[in-house]
Amino acid sequence: MSQTDMSIFEKLESEVRSYVRSFPTVFTKAKNYKMWDEQGKEYIDFFSGAGALNYGHNDPHMKSKLVDYILSDGITHSLDMATTAKAEFLTTFNDVILKPRNLDYKVMFPGPTGTNTVESALKLARKVTGRTEVISFTNGFHGMTIGALSVTGNAFKRKGAGVPLQNVITMPYDSFVNDNLDTLEYLERFLTDGGSGVEIPAAMILETVQGEGGINAARFEWLQRVEDICKRWGILLIIDDVQAGVGRTGTFFSFEKAGIKPDIVCMSKSIGGMGLPLAITLIRPDLDIFAPGEHNGTFRGNNHAFVTATAALSYWEDPNFEKGIETRSKRMFAFLERLVADYPELKGEAKGRGYMVGISSEVDGLSPKIAAEAFKRGLIMETSGPKDEVFKLFPPLTIDDEGLEKGFAIIEDSIKAVLGAKELVTS
Amino acid sequence: MSQTDMSIFEKLESEVRSYVRSFPTVFTKAKNYKMWDEQGKEYIDFFSGAGALNYGHNDPHMKSKLVDYILSDGITHSLDMATTAKAEFLTTFNDVILKPRNLDYKVMFPGPTGTNTVESALKLARKVTGRTEVISFTNGFHGMTIGALSVTGNAFKRKGAGVPLQNVITMPYDSFVNDNLDTLEYLERFLTDGGSGVEIPAAMILETVQGEGGINAARFEWLQRVEDICKRWGILLIIDDVQAGVGRTGTFFSFEKAGIKPDIVCMSKSIGGMGLPLAITLIRPDLDIFAPGEHNGTFRGNNHAFVTATAALSYWEDPNFEKGIETRSKRMFAFLERLVADYPELKGEAKGRGYMVGISSEVDGLSPKIAAEAFKRGLIMETSGPKDEVFKLFPPLTIDDEGLEKGFAIIEDSIKAVLGAKELVTS
Amino acid sequence: MSQTDMSIFEKLESEVRSYVRSFPTVFTKAKNYKMWDEQGKEYIDFFSGAGALNYGHNDPHMKSKLVDYILSDGITHSLDMATTAKAEFLTTFNDVILKPRNLDYKVMFPGPTGTNTVESALKLARKVTGRTEVISFTNGFHGMTIGALSVTGNAFKRKGAGVPLQNVITMPYDSFVNDNLDTLEYLERFLTDGGSGVEIPAAMILETVQGEGGINAARFEWLQRVEDICKRWGILLIIDDVQAGVGRTGTFFSFEKAGIKPDIVCMSKSIGGMGLPLAITLIRPDLDIFAPGEHNGTFRGNNHAFVTATAALSYWEDPNFEKGIETRSKRMFAFLERLVADYPELKGEAKGRGYMVGISSEVDGLSPKIAAEAFKRGLIMETSGPKDEVFKLFPPLTIDDEGLEKGFAIIEDSIKAVLGAKELVTS
Amino acid sequence: MSQTDMSIFEKLESEVRSYVRSFPTVFTKAKNYKMWDEQGKEYIDFFSGAGALNYGHNDPHMKSKLVDYILSDGITHSLDMATTAKAEFLTTFNDVILKPRNLDYKVMFPGPTGTNTVESALKLARKVTGRTEVISFTNGFHGMTIGALSVTGNAFKRKGAGVPLQNVITMPYDSFVNDNLDTLEYLERFLTDGGSGVEIPAAMILETVQGEGGINAARFEWLQRVEDICKRWGILLIIDDVQAGVGRTGTFFSFEKAGIKPDIVCMSKSIGGMGLPLAITLIRPDLDIFAPGEHNGTFRGNNHAFVTATAALSYWEDPNFEKGIETRSKRMFAFLERLVADYPELKGEAKGRGYMVGISSEVDGLSPKIAAEAFKRGLIMETSGPKDEVFKLFPPLTIDDEGLEKGFAIIEDSIKAVLGAKELVTS
Repeated sequence: MSQTDMSIFEKLESEVRSYVRSFPTVFTKAKNYKMWDEQGKEYIDFFSGAGALNYGHNDPHMKSKLVDYILSDGITHSLDMATTAKAEFLTTFNDVILKPRNLDYKVMFPGPTGTNTVESALKLARKVTGRTEVISFTNGFHGMTIGALSVTGNAFKRKGAGVPLQNVITMPYDSFVNDNLDTLEYLERFLTDGGSGVEIPAAMILETVQGEGGINAARFEWLQRVEDICKRWGILLIIDDVQAGVGRTGTFFSFEKAGIKPDIVCMSKSIGGMGLPLAITLIRPDLDIFAPGEHNGTFRGNNHAFVTATAALSYWEDPNFEKGIETRSKRMFAFLERLVADYPELKGEAKGRGYMVGISSEVDGLSPKIAAEAFKRGLIMETSGPKDEVFKLFPPLTIDDEGLEKGFAIIEDSIKAVLGAKELVTS
Repeated sequence: MSQTDMSIFEKLESEVRSYVRSFPTVFTKAKNYKMWDEQGKEYIDFFSGAGALNYGHNDPHMKSKLVDYILSDGITHSLDMATTAKAEFLTTFNDVILKPRNLDYKVMFPGPTGTNTVESALKLARKVTGRTEVISFTNGFHGMTIGALSVTGNAFKRKGAGVPLQNVITMPYDSFVNDNLDTLEYLERFLTDGGSGVEIPAAMILETVQGEGGINAARFEWLQRVEDICKRWGILLIIDDVQAGVGRTGTFFSFEKAGIKPDIVCMSKSIGGMGLPLAITLIRPDLDIFAPGEHNGTFRGNNHAFVTATAALSYWEDPNFEKGIETRSKRMFAFLERLVADYPELKGEAKGRGYMVGISSEVDGLSPKIAAEAFKRGLIMETSGPKDEVFKLFPPLTIDDEGLEKGFAIIEDSIKAVLGAKELVTS
Repeated sequence: MSQTDMSIFEKLESEVRSYVRSFPTVFTKAKNYKMWDEQGKEYIDFFSGAGALNYGHNDPHMKSKLVDYILSDGITHSLDMATTAKAEFLTTFNDVILKPRNLDYKVMFPGPTGTNTVESALKLARKVTGRTEVISFTNGFHGMTIGALSVTGNAFKRKGAGVPLQNVITMPYDSFVNDNLDTLEYLERFLTDGGSGVEIPAAMILETVQGEGGINAARFEWLQRVEDICKRWGILLIIDDVQAGVGRTGTFFSFEKAGIKPDIVCMSKSIGGMGLPLAITLIRPDLDIFAPGEHNGTFRGNNHAFVTATAALSYWEDPNFEKGIETRSKRMFAFLERLVADYPELKGEAKGRGYMVGISSEVDGLSPKIAAEAFKRGLIMETSGPKDEVFKLFPPLTIDDEGLEKGFAIIEDSIKAVLGAKELVTS
Repeated sequence: MSQTDMSIFEKLESEVRSYVRSFPTVFTKAKNYKMWDEQGKEYIDFFSGAGALNYGHNDPHMKSKLVDYILSDGITHSLDMATTAKAEFLTTFNDVILKPRNLDYKVMFPGPTGTNTVESALKLARKVTGRTEVISFTNGFHGMTIGALSVTGNAFKRKGAGVPLQNVITMPYDSFVNDNLDTLEYLERFLTDGGSGVEIPAAMILETVQGEGGINAARFEWLQRVEDICKRWGILLIIDDVQAGVGRTGTFFSFEKAGIKPDIVCMSKSIGGMGLPLAITLIRPDLDIFAPGEHNGTFRGNNHAFVTATAALSYWEDPNFEKGIETRSKRMFAFLERLVADYPELKGEAKGRGYMVGISSEVDGLSPKIAAEAFKRGLIMETSGPKDEVFKLFPPLTIDDEGLEKGFAIIEDSIKAVLGAKELVTS
């Protein structure tokens, strides 16, 4: 294969392109936690498609199932007609995921993106309750279409709407103001006081761990109190598990350990298994009052993704899978805590849960520099937070110890290099 | 393969499911214009995934390219990083489609759905102009997320939003009131009069042929006048070619024969070639002022779809492809006109353009009955329009004469059966 | 009394001041249709406080009643407590106005301004129907607070809101596009078509003659059809009679001759009799479902205005009052038609109804020049319309023949002067 | 004068009427702090037109000036043309109020109601900053038209809008959550964090003491910090002094003792002196960028109110006036504190500042009962707060010691009566 001229993207693709600027090379091949560019350079992937590749790249089992399906002329596109592939996904998801967790959600297939499942959830919550307002939380990220953007906190993204974003009240996420301020006492005061200007909303929507917002993990106790407030006030609880779900925090659903049962759950990204577009909205059965076609979309039945999604669920049949995540999570967090301790110049704080962790640095611009340095050294790692102050460790759940160690080494080397360079500059 | 119990869908899938109700069987295999269900029954597909399968099901060339790609561990998911597959798509799209048509659009990859390209187009138009309002047209359909839904006409879909839909003014599409009322004189009067309550909008968004809205084809002259009004008033013209594009009306872009050059073009559905999720937004280069990441999405780089999309474009390298569409379009329309003439009980009118045609029947409920009857007889055909008054012929562009004739026969038989039954009932 | 320095207003009053710029002198005294400034110069008033002084300035009967009331320490301010003055107004209004016209409206006292009665009417219509949207009409003017401004057509005023104005659909007023286009066929098409993007509104709000919008008088037949459409669709009909009511068009309510019965009527301006702030909202009894205090305001009980308003109603007890308006209306319109015929350079059109008439001139900027010239010559006359293209004759209903003739003479002289000056300039 | 049948109001007036239900008698005459009904019964007025009668009823000096003006045929209604009466008000207001306080505001005359000055202030703030959002505070009350209602906290009033209220963010007023939570730290955290979902607003609008919201007095230190935040973030500070202004809290402007200088001040109610409708908006000179007529209204020049407003300002020329307010304020608060101590069954808290004080009782429904009992005994007194939990002492500033003592006695007797009755019931 001939080499691609990178200027093609500048010339032909919109200025909106983004990650290609942070990771400026042409990728051509990938396997589990490794990627290769056209020059054959190998990269460790601590990014995982922003959570869409929890099972790594090109899992052999999924690949094989998908290729068989294609070769047999299995239905590729079917809107929401019934197909064998869809039936298998529904059945397997019910058997492997829902039933063992004592959940009985109905499954909706909106358009195959995170923003679409969020839009469908908001629609349904408003229909069920007959109310218009929705409570979202500071630094929440839920998508880029107008409905989902309304409940997203990021000012830059919001401004992109070009119109005022309405019908939403933003409340402080756990530890938003400081660790002592009880944000839920505050929230409930608004619900209680008839003069607060805040009407009882249709729903609250939140992530249990905020990825884009800066790896903020809500405490389980906080989540339990949110659920309790929702129940007492007749407010629907929507958990956006697009990024934190599918094992990213250690369990299939991110809210399992908190012991809560949301009314609606939004999933996308890794639900498709191999990085193919798929989204599902899980709905408490008695709330499933959509009329046929009331929310629809051309790609709501992406059969290739059904095939790989079904294959992916077999990981969850083996109890060791979750245990492995837990073990490595601890190593990751310990590594981060050591970094914070060993490199005080970072002014860092280790944050997050499971495979969704990172270091927040108070030093302006430092985290992006570390990520850029890591890329040069062969590691793909993203930053997040309102000021990109966090560098994120998002390896696939399927990474092995060797991959993890390699990644750690590159990160530490990058920190050293950046801090060293800084010293040179500032001294 | 064992037989799927249809009750799985009732039990596990949301009530929102829709086409499975019109076409109640489990499909398992498909090839070009044919589909088979688990019982082995064959269906002629005059639906084409609502325009997502213009090249038919499982095109052998695309399949082969895709399988090779998968087997070679080609990048599957990459957000908007650069990949070899993306570079090839961009280059081929530019060489085969844009350059020969003297177009120089920049290509944006929003989330891989129609609604997402529409949301990105509206955002950009508002950013470029600094204005908030958008003019949409009666019976337009642009998607189900709040931004796209705002510019969609259908009352049932709009109501689903659960919040007032804002920042949009609906104007009458060509021939909306009656054939004599000049809807553009009306529209421009609103722009001209400083007391009209209508402010100069950021953009107008429209389909050249409205699919979901009832197969309404705007006259070329009307489209030219819309473009002229937009230019004179500094309003951006957005053509939503999600359904009418990719050859559906006879040319790659639906607006080619009208001779207009929109400022922004929305594409999805068949752009991916084989029914895989993909969407692109084409942007006049001087309007490409998005900041990096200002609109984004997890699946904006669906490499499998890049592979099949690139393969699909080879159809357009052969000038005979367009000619074939034209020839068969005429046959289709002649067939519909004959039906209207031969079956006056239909109170029908032949409508549409290219492979996007149908009969609008004034008889309440008749079109859905004909479509249901056709399904029993092995033809998949959809209805559209605000009262489902149109039955639509949407065969793949790749259908052969035999397929077309078989489809025609089933339609005529279905009409006879329904009209016969009706006579029995009403007499 | 010493002379006032006009620079006081420049120095101390906001730039928003407006009429003081068109009529730059300090007024100090007024009687019926005459005003005097501090220099003792006399002016004929063809402006009548934009319709707030239909009974002229300082009517002796009203004055005397008001002074007696004040001297007896009658209640001045009482919110919506019961007072003798209020009881008398309610009783008299019912006896003199409502009963003889076979109307049984309940009377609401919102804040004492036009915009406030409009806001109360919109609120009630939305509460009664449970719907959010309201249909307003091109060039309608209903007030400057956000709710009333939403249903106002003028682009400059709307822009002043600083936020998008929502929940309103603007439809074309009678003869908006041209005299041949049936604007109600258009409107109803939008209601009928489920794909029109226009949902069934809570109400339609309109003026029977648009004052600020350019003296556009809707034909009675058009008004009757509006009422018919409202009835058939369950839409409330709100007539804003703030400017056109209280005799301005020849009858107490402007809609009497059209034979329609609105569901809600908004009144202010001349309802107070002597130019004191007062507004009332008339409500079909079965729609009077406000909760106590659901709409309120500090000055909703302006007792001074109750006193003068009650006194004013005695005019309507004499049937000759209406007849006199009719006779003089004809003379006014005939005068205008003669002007149009005699001065073709005006490119003028006589418009309006009753004492709410004017000439619309196609010549850019001509009408304001004529009004300015008239002011120099001792006549106060306003312009209106989106481009100030109409000069308005708005004398008090109580003007005598002498006053009318004097005003006519000044207008004709002013036209001559302006056209003469123009010839000099352009030749 | 014959006696009025109270059923007139039931029959002819809308259900929206409110105070007539709390004070069910027909008032006919009033003087300073006394009112008489048609039966000749005398009432002490501790309500003062909800703050519109700070100088008491029918002040002899104002009366005399007004009657002279009327008898001399002074201009009554003039929109915003210049009149002698307006010039005198502007000059006197500048000389007596603004200059001595070192303020240089431009004066705008919006429509003559509180809601109208608030709407004008919001418009201007949005125009000056080019931003759409406004921060309001819990339990704020600013008026009933859609713009003013948007920044009002009361849920019942907000629901009356019938449409979602937009472009506003409600923040916690001083001591909203509890006395320990620093509400401004919270507020500023939202401004600082780019992911908070809260964009930098055009303005903050607030009352220094919330009347309708339950007599909540913000601490001066809190107000100073609000001003500081506004300055640092380029946010305009709007003080709504409609109720708290004109001496109600002890100084002409309620914010004087806090030492802050708002960018915009809203005034109405007592600014007119005698209870006649008038409102003014005070604007920092460099922000006075309204275009002529950008905000207008028929009654923006209420000359009768100019006459009484000018007369009223003479009170402020005597420094003993303010001192008298201060002395009696202390007595009032001491009286309330004694009540709280002596009647623990009230579970009461004394609240407020100046002549704007009351007792908040935790006992559900108790305050309205006390107010109703007081009315029977000849005292007019209102309740406020989201649950009507506060009974308010709002005597005119001109009340003498005898009036005050009589009022106190009735209140204490009413409390005893209500608590006694309660004991009988509950024991």
